[in-house]
Amino acid sequence: MKTGYRSHNNGELRMTHVGEEVSLVGWVQKSRDLGGLTFVDVRDRYGVTQLAFNMESNEVLCKKARTLGREFVVQAKGKVAERSSKNKNIPTGEIEIVVDELTVLKEAKLPPFTIEDETDGGDELRMQYRFLDLRRNPLKKNLLLRHQMGLETRKFLSDQAFIEVETPYLIKSTPEGARDFVVPSRMNPGEFYALPQSPQTFKQLLMVSGYDRYFQIVKCFRDEDLRADRQPEFTQIDCEMAFVEQEDVLMTFEGLVKHLFKSLKDVEFEGDFPRMDYAEAMERYGSDKPDIRFGMELKNISHLAQNKGFQVFDSCEAVIAIAVPGCAEYSRKQLDALTDWVKRPQIGAKGMVYVKCNTDGTFKSSVDKFYSQEDLAAWAEFAGAKTGDLILVLSGGLDKTRKMMNELRLHMGDELGLRDPNVFKPLWVLDFPLLEWDEETKRYHAMHHPFTSPKKEDFDKLESAPGEVRANAYDLAINGVEVGGGSIRIHDSSIQSRMFDLLGFTKEEAKAQFGFLMNAFEYGAPPHGGIAFGFDRLCSLFGGQDSIRDFIAFPKNNSGRDVMIDAPAVIDETQLKELSLRVNMESPVK
Amino acid sequence: MKTGYRSHNNGELRMTHVGEEVSLVGWVQKSRDLGGLTFVDVRDRYGVTQLAFNMESNEVLCKKARTLGREFVVQAKGKVAERSSKNKNIPTGEIEIVVDELTVLKEAKLPPFTIEDETDGGDELRMQYRFLDLRRNPLKKNLLLRHQMGLETRKFLSDQAFIEVETPYLIKSTPEGARDFVVPSRMNPGEFYALPQSPQTFKQLLMVSGYDRYFQIVKCFRDEDLRADRQPEFTQIDCEMAFVEQEDVLMTFEGLVKHLFKSLKDVEFEGDFPRMDYAEAMERYGSDKPDIRFGMELKNISHLAQNKGFQVFDSCEAVIAIAVPGCAEYSRKQLDALTDWVKRPQIGAKGMVYVKCNTDGTFKSSVDKFYSQEDLAAWAEFAGAKTGDLILVLSGGLDKTRKMMNELRLHMGDELGLRDPNVFKPLWVLDFPLLEWDEETKRYHAMHHPFTSPKKEDFDKLESAPGEVRANAYDLAINGVEVGGGSIRIHDSSIQSRMFDLLGFTKEEAKAQFGFLMNAFEYGAPPHGGIAFGFDRLCSLFGGQDSIRDFIAFPKNNSGRDVMIDAPAVIDETQLKELSLRVNMESPVK
Repeated sequence: MKTGYRSHNNGELRMTHVGEEVSLVGWVQKSRDLGGLTFVDVRDRYGVTQLAFNMESNEVLCKKARTLGREFVVQAKGKVAERSSKNKNIPTGEIEIVVDELTVLKEAKLPPFTIEDETDGGDELRMQYRFLDLRRNPLKKNLLLRHQMGLETRKFLSDQAFIEVETPYLIKSTPEGARDFVVPSRMNPGEFYALPQSPQTFKQLLMVSGYDRYFQIVKCFRDEDLRADRQPEFTQIDCEMAFVEQEDVLMTFEGLVKHLFKSLKDVEFEGDFPRMDYAEAMERYGSDKPDIRFGMELKNISHLAQNKGFQVFDSCEAVIAIAVPGCAEYSRKQLDALTDWVKRPQIGAKGMVYVKCNTDGTFKSSVDKFYSQEDLAAWAEFAGAKTGDLILVLSGGLDKTRKMMNELRLHMGDELGLRDPNVFKPLWVLDFPLLEWDEETKRYHAMHHPFTSPKKEDFDKLESAPGEVRANAYDLAINGVEVGGGSIRIHDSSIQSRMFDLLGFTKEEAKAQFGFLMNAFEYGAPPHGGIAFGFDRLCSLFGGQDSIRDFIAFPKNNSGRDVMIDAPAVIDETQLKELSLRVNMESPVK
Repeated sequence: MKTGYRSHNNGELRMTHVGEEVSLVGWVQKSRDLGGLTFVDVRDRYGVTQLAFNMESNEVLCKKARTLGREFVVQAKGKVAERSSKNKNIPTGEIEIVVDELTVLKEAKLPPFTIEDETDGGDELRMQYRFLDLRRNPLKKNLLLRHQMGLETRKFLSDQAFIEVETPYLIKSTPEGARDFVVPSRMNPGEFYALPQSPQTFKQLLMVSGYDRYFQIVKCFRDEDLRADRQPEFTQIDCEMAFVEQEDVLMTFEGLVKHLFKSLKDVEFEGDFPRMDYAEAMERYGSDKPDIRFGMELKNISHLAQNKGFQVFDSCEAVIAIAVPGCAEYSRKQLDALTDWVKRPQIGAKGMVYVKCNTDGTFKSSVDKFYSQEDLAAWAEFAGAKTGDLILVLSGGLDKTRKMMNELRLHMGDELGLRDPNVFKPLWVLDFPLLEWDEETKRYHAMHHPFTSPKKEDFDKLESAPGEVRANAYDLAINGVEVGGGSIRIHDSSIQSRMFDLLGFTKEEAKAQFGFLMNAFEYGAPPHGGIAFGFDRLCSLFGGQDSIRDFIAFPKNNSGRDVMIDAPAVIDETQLKELSLRVNMESPVK
């Protein structure tokens, strides 16, 4: 760490260094005057060290120290001394530097918010002055975690004979999937590159090339309308293996995730990660990425709740309940708030029914008019509610009610503090449906992508009951967050043709869109499959936070803008001309 | 390496495995029938193993083996056996697999060129079928080297407290420097992102943020007219350090380069890398990246050659010679070929003079008419030519002649086999000029970039003799290849203003172009500097090859096209509309 400017960093000096002549550099965190003494805390990436100045022993220097403003960049030379009043809160708190030479390397304007763990800066201001926000410890910790995660990922995979191969960023636009960002080519007028949404094609080609274990930590790009916490550019741990079955992929990457937890969080898991098939996950949790840190599982009480005269339940497809532990005492106000919460457009429930399982063994519900105490007792038993619990019930179409109930379950988990960010519960979700019916286009879409292999045992349902065909596709969910997902790919041409038929492609369309990869397969494609992890997401999970934004050094806002550098921006007319382009603001813009 | 498809790879079986039941997979490299026996070589990433079939013991299986075509993907199960005739050339050459089960996992079309170390495929065909070319050992070796170099770079730098930070790819276009690739923003109609030519601004911001040791292995983009061996997207090892002087940067990255040589090539260097200032490099080698594997240094013999009546030399600025060892016997034809070579437009010499230092002590030159034996003896002595050497002389403007002579020197080095790709001679080139005079715009340009710090001792020449001001800028050259370069940055505002003045920027222009970074500096920029290495170039150097193309998995051709996926390409009219763009083919296109 020693350089021409410093002998030590601000995190390393201890009692053992007392008496040494040192040279430190850093930013002024704060300073205070105590009678004839002045103390200045100097911060760098490694910590904070106190500089001490004494009006009596060196008036000129002490006066100079008193002119230092917050965030000035300074160099101080002096002797390490024991502090009279020690600060147990920081590692360097036992010592201070008795300064005999002080240089201001750079003065600093007052930052628009405080550079402290808890800052007074609003989101917008912090984004605009990201370079100052990045000085704060929480962000520094996040970026260090990200760096470590990259290192450990590469170490683990390389030790397993994976090779990192860089795939190109200037590729070809494909009409499938999300919207591409495109890049006009000056040398090929009227033509465009596209930025990759993922290196999918290239990693499959690398399997054809025989690089049987590929990975890459790589930027991907999607020009989607940005929902909260989506970024137009994001990072993936992209992986592919050849000559593997699903089990090989799962065990290999379970190994990776375990290694990351052990090396970065000192968390160890006993035995294999639990697995659940998609159908069960949807039934028990209403989600394909269940948070299994807590129970409160979904129970379909339709058979108990219907045909008792309550029109709302009688007329719907499904009545689903969860038993919220220890909440029978919820007040009218609390229940109203919950009802309002589920009625928000993001959730979309029409209403909510509750049943209090009172401590005296009676039940009090919002539908007492229609259900007897015995009826409610049956609900409670079926939903697994005990005395003192609160049963919450939503109803409607099966799929929609499950989804709403998933949201409500997670919300109640949050309310009751059951989602401890320091507890990690991974879950493999398996056997995803191969196809998804799209109401709008009235046809099936590939749930994962068109090369995802159907399960062998479902081959004969491909034409007869395509909606029921399960895929060799898998997701890894941790704490309700989808951190990774992948599939075994089709490498059999006849299955691939049946797949294209199902997706409603004519031979010509299939050829136009996927012909290149299909053609490459003709030259000897091995059986293969892979997975991709959301790197930003994995970082935020490990960092115990919901948002990925503070795990990205320079993120964009929800309009896809970098407000710090003010991008995107208009470009010169000559630049446009060179690209054979014209901006056409009259065209329909969303 | 064990998966559901294989128990071992094709590079690991040895005599110690004899008798074991194994399962192998791979591509059919070749097969041959010897009477009642058939042998099939199966290849994967790890090697080749021989499968053995016997018509007598299993006719059906042997017949099946005889149907295998080149590059078929197969799985073979059987027992490891000792070979009767061993192949010492491959690690698995002592054993073979007596196969009892053979599965064709995928048939393969005949590849358009042979998948062997020396292929019969032309460049174009190999680019088009890159996924097949990548199966060949030389390319596999290159990509593995690249993977290892990435790993070792990250390991070394992380051990030195560097942190890898991902900077954004969608940034802002700047009119300075090379041409940007731009990305239209759909959400911000009429506005464009730019792809980074380097993360320069962001790495300097990270210094302001206090991340005093940053690195990133990162893709960069330049929309330049592609000369041979340039790629529109290329990879950099990008680094920056704060609180450092030039010496800190040089020693740190000399450490990195030594580590890479030691770990990847088992090459060790004695002592520090030699250093040479720019002026000396230009004088002695006519190049800012001298190949110091061999001598043949440039000698300015103007004082000896001028004013002797030879009009060509008398009328020019400089007469420069090199002594080519042991080539006095060059024939007329060889000398004519050399003269033609220097007269090619790429070199641009008007002619060449030679002096043969004959073994009998006499001299024979192409300018005997003007120079006596004594004159030529003086040349020989000054140029360091010994008996049996050939002196080659070019003349003209000083700078141009040096450049031409550099080319000729390298050419002769190649001719004489003095440029051994297994010998590595690094050299730091220091004290580059700060500014470059541009004849076209009649103003100074920053040689490195506008934030490069002038040397303190030259501060007072900034206005009086700007052309003489040297910069704290450095390049690392190895074997005549510039592998890295960087500088200490200006962090003093007053020096920065003087620099902008020199570059002819008004205050407004400076603010418009660099205001954002300058403003960030106002909040406390530490002294800092950095370096960037060309990763593709470093790989090709380590791989002992001149071209970077075969160290990139999926490169583009000289028109910036990926001929394999056929990108760039036209995009849908709807895509253009969404981007508020129109293609305008009438605009002047270069």
